[in-house]
Amino acid sequence: MRKVELITTGNEILSGLTVDTNFSWAADKFSTNGIIPSYHVSVSDDKEDITAAFSTASNRSAFVIVTGGLGPTDDDLTAETAAEFFGVELNYDEKSYLDLEEKLRSRGRNVLDVHKKQAMFPSGSQIIKNKTGTSNGFKFTFQDCSFYFLPGVPREFKAMIEDFVLPDLMHSAGPDNYILQKVIKTIGLGESEVAVKLKGLNIDDADFSYRIKYPEIHLKLVAKSGSLDEAEKIINKHTNKINNLLDDYIYTDKDEPIEKVVAELLVENKLTIATAESCTGGLLGSLLTDIPGSSEYFLRGVITYSNESKTEILGVDEDLFETVGAVSDEVVHQMASGIRQISLSDIGVGISGIAGPGGGTEEKPVGTVYIGVDYMNHVYSYRYNFHGTRKDIKLASAIYALDKVRNLIIKK
Amino acid sequence: MRKVELITTGNEILSGLTVDTNFSWAADKFSTNGIIPSYHVSVSDDKEDITAAFSTASNRSAFVIVTGGLGPTDDDLTAETAAEFFGVELNYDEKSYLDLEEKLRSRGRNVLDVHKKQAMFPSGSQIIKNKTGTSNGFKFTFQDCSFYFLPGVPREFKAMIEDFVLPDLMHSAGPDNYILQKVIKTIGLGESEVAVKLKGLNIDDADFSYRIKYPEIHLKLVAKSGSLDEAEKIINKHTNKINNLLDDYIYTDKDEPIEKVVAELLVENKLTIATAESCTGGLLGSLLTDIPGSSEYFLRGVITYSNESKTEILGVDEDLFETVGAVSDEVVHQMASGIRQISLSDIGVGISGIAGPGGGTEEKPVGTVYIGVDYMNHVYSYRYNFHGTRKDIKLASAIYALDKVRNLIIKK
Repeated sequence: MRKVELITTGNEILSGLTVDTNFSWAADKFSTNGIIPSYHVSVSDDKEDITAAFSTASNRSAFVIVTGGLGPTDDDLTAETAAEFFGVELNYDEKSYLDLEEKLRSRGRNVLDVHKKQAMFPSGSQIIKNKTGTSNGFKFTFQDCSFYFLPGVPREFKAMIEDFVLPDLMHSAGPDNYILQKVIKTIGLGESEVAVKLKGLNIDDADFSYRIKYPEIHLKLVAKSGSLDEAEKIINKHTNKINNLLDDYIYTDKDEPIEKVVAELLVENKLTIATAESCTGGLLGSLLTDIPGSSEYFLRGVITYSNESKTEILGVDEDLFETVGAVSDEVVHQMASGIRQISLSDIGVGISGIAGPGGGTEEKPVGTVYIGVDYMNHVYSYRYNFHGTRKDIKLASAIYALDKVRNLIIKK
Repeated sequence: MRKVELITTGNEILSGLTVDTNFSWAADKFSTNGIIPSYHVSVSDDKEDITAAFSTASNRSAFVIVTGGLGPTDDDLTAETAAEFFGVELNYDEKSYLDLEEKLRSRGRNVLDVHKKQAMFPSGSQIIKNKTGTSNGFKFTFQDCSFYFLPGVPREFKAMIEDFVLPDLMHSAGPDNYILQKVIKTIGLGESEVAVKLKGLNIDDADFSYRIKYPEIHLKLVAKSGSLDEAEKIINKHTNKINNLLDDYIYTDKDEPIEKVVAELLVENKLTIATAESCTGGLLGSLLTDIPGSSEYFLRGVITYSNESKTEILGVDEDLFETVGAVSDEVVHQMASGIRQISLSDIGVGISGIAGPGGGTEEKPVGTVYIGVDYMNHVYSYRYNFHGTRKDIKLASAIYALDKVRNLIIKK
C-alpha cells in the first residue's frame, strides 16, 4: 500500500505547550479502517522547515495530511508556503469568503481584512469544507502525491477527517490491514493475580496487553488482519477464552464504567440502594448518580465522617469505636444495615477505611478499608488493603463496593 | 542556537494504539529550560525508515534524541540500525549486562539469552544508565551531531532525560530562550464575561490564552525571554493586572484545585462544614474529603436524593415540593440550614438541581441548580443555569458551591 504521512505544524506543539491530540486520534481512526500511517512529523511555524517537510513527504508518501496554520494571523503560513512549494499562485475563493463572513456574523463577530487570507488557496486546489469552524481546508495533488490541508482545531480537524479525508483515502488507497481492539475490564485482582489466572492463555495471532486503571486491571486485545471479519473472529475467540478464565472478575468488555453496569442491574432487577460512606466521602454516591435516571434506584446516602454522626444517623453502637475502632468489620456491618433500614432500600452499603496519608497504625495501615453490603437483610463484609494516594484509596474503595454489589445481584 | 530534534520509533505510536506522551513531556521540560525543539518525527519499527530519519536529522540538527526500540525483542532495532548508520560495530558491554542480570534477578525474573541484546551498543558510545528499568541508553557523536538513545517506557525515559540528557544539552547547547507559564484560575464567569472584564488588558510581550476547564475559566500566560528573571518579571506584571481586573473571581494562580483552597481557608479560620446534596449525589462531599486532614473541617454530609429523605433528615417542609418544587430557593435554604443545625457545623451547604438529561421544564430547564449556604445562621442562596452533560452539571454545581463558600469566608 502507498504510504500515508501526517505533518503537524505549530510552535506550540514543539515547545510542549500543547499536546498534539489530533495525531493519535487520526492514527487510531485510520488504523481501524485498515490504513496505518508510516510517518508523523512535527515542524515549527517556519517557512523553510515546512517546505522541507513537504519535500520529504512528497518523495516518500502518496498521501500527506498537513494540520495547522490555516488561520488569519501572521504565523499562519501553510497555504502560502504550500502554493510556493507547488509552484502555483494563491487564488481568492469567493464562496469560502462568503461562508466565512456569514459564520462570523452569526457569532456576532466582525469580519476584518485579515479574514480575506482564509479564503486564499493554491490555484488548482479542491476546497474541503469546514462545517464546524471558519477555516476551510483544501486538497492539492502534487506529482503523484495527494496533500490534504486541515485546520488544527481538534473539533474541526476531526470532522473534516471523518467527512472528507478518510473516505477519500479509503477510495484512493484501499485498506491494507484492519486493526480492531477490545478492552476487557476486571475488578478484584491485581495484575500478577490476573496473569496467574491467564497462564494457560496462548495468544499468537493478536497483541495482548495489560492496562492498569487503578484499581481495575484492563486487558487489551488488538487484532490485525486483511479483513474486518477475520479480525473480529480473532478478537471474539480470545474474549471467550478470557471470559472462561476470569469469570466473575470481569464486569464488562464494552466501553462502560462499573457504575453503569451496576445501575443497569439495579434497574433490571427493580432494586433500590442507599449508601453510608466514611472514607470515600460521597464518592460512591456520586458514581451511582452519574448515570441518568439514578433516582429510580438511588434513594439516599449519608457521609458519616465523624463517629458521632455514625451513631446518630445510623445507630452504630458507640462502644465499638473503643473496642474495635471505626474502621472495622462490625462498624461497616452496622453502617450497611443502618442505612438500609432508615431508607427502606433493598441494598445498603457501608464503607469505612483509612484513606491517608495520616491515620494508619501497624494493625490497620493506610489503605485498610472495610466494605459492608446489606443485601435484603443479609450482611456481607470484606476487608481490603488498597495502596496509592488518598484519591486512589477512595476510588478503589468505591469501585470495589460497586463490584461487590454487582456480584451479589448476579449471584441472587 | 543549534537545533534539537526528537525521533520516536514504534509501530504502536503510528497506529494510534499508544499516545506519545514522552514527546510533549520532554518538549515542555526542554522549553522551560530555554531549549525549544525544532523537529519531532515518528517512524515505524522499520530499519529503512529509521535510517532515513537518522540521516535527515544528522543533516539539520545538532542534537537528536531517539526514543524506543532498545528492548530485547525482535522488533527492537534501534541499536543495530544506529551502528549500521554510524558505520561502527555493536560492542558487548559487560557492565550493562551484569546490571541487567542483577535487576532481573531482584524482580524474580529469569535472565534469558535475548537479554544479551540489551547490552550491545555501537562501538564508541557513552552508556546512559537506566536507574529505573532494564535497558540502558547511549550517546553517540556522529559528525557534528550528538545522538541520544533512550528507552520508550515513560518513567525510564523521563528519568534519563532529567538525569543525563537535559544537563548535557544545557552544557553543550546553552539555553536560547526561557519559557515560563502561569495559569490563573477563575470561577463564576463565562469565557466572554471574562473577556469583557479584561478588555483593557494589553499583553504584547507574552502569549495570553483562555482554557475552558468547565465550569472554570483558566487564563494562561506564557512568557519567553533570554533570561529567567526577565520572563518572571513579565509574568508577574500581567498577573498583577489580571488580579486587579478579575478580583474575587480568581481563586488561585497556583497549581491547586478549588477544594484545596477552601480546605485551607476552613482550617485557617477554624471553621467546620456539612453538606446536603441532591443532584450532585455526594460529589461535593467527595471533593471536600479529597484533601488530607479533612476530618478537621468536614463533619458530615447527606445525599438526600428523594423528597422524603429531604424532609425526614433535614426537616424540609414537605409542602414546598408541591408549591415551589424540590429545585427551588426555599428548599436549598432549608437544606443548608437543616444540615448545619443537625451537624452543629459553622457552615451548611445545600444543593438541588436538574442534572439531566431528563427532568427539565420550560421554567426550570436541565442545568437549573440552586445552591444555599448557611454561614453561621445567615443563609445565602443562588440560582444557576449550567450546561453540558449530566456530569458537567454535577461538577459545575459542586465547584460553584465551593467557590461560594470561599467567597463568604474571605468576606467575613
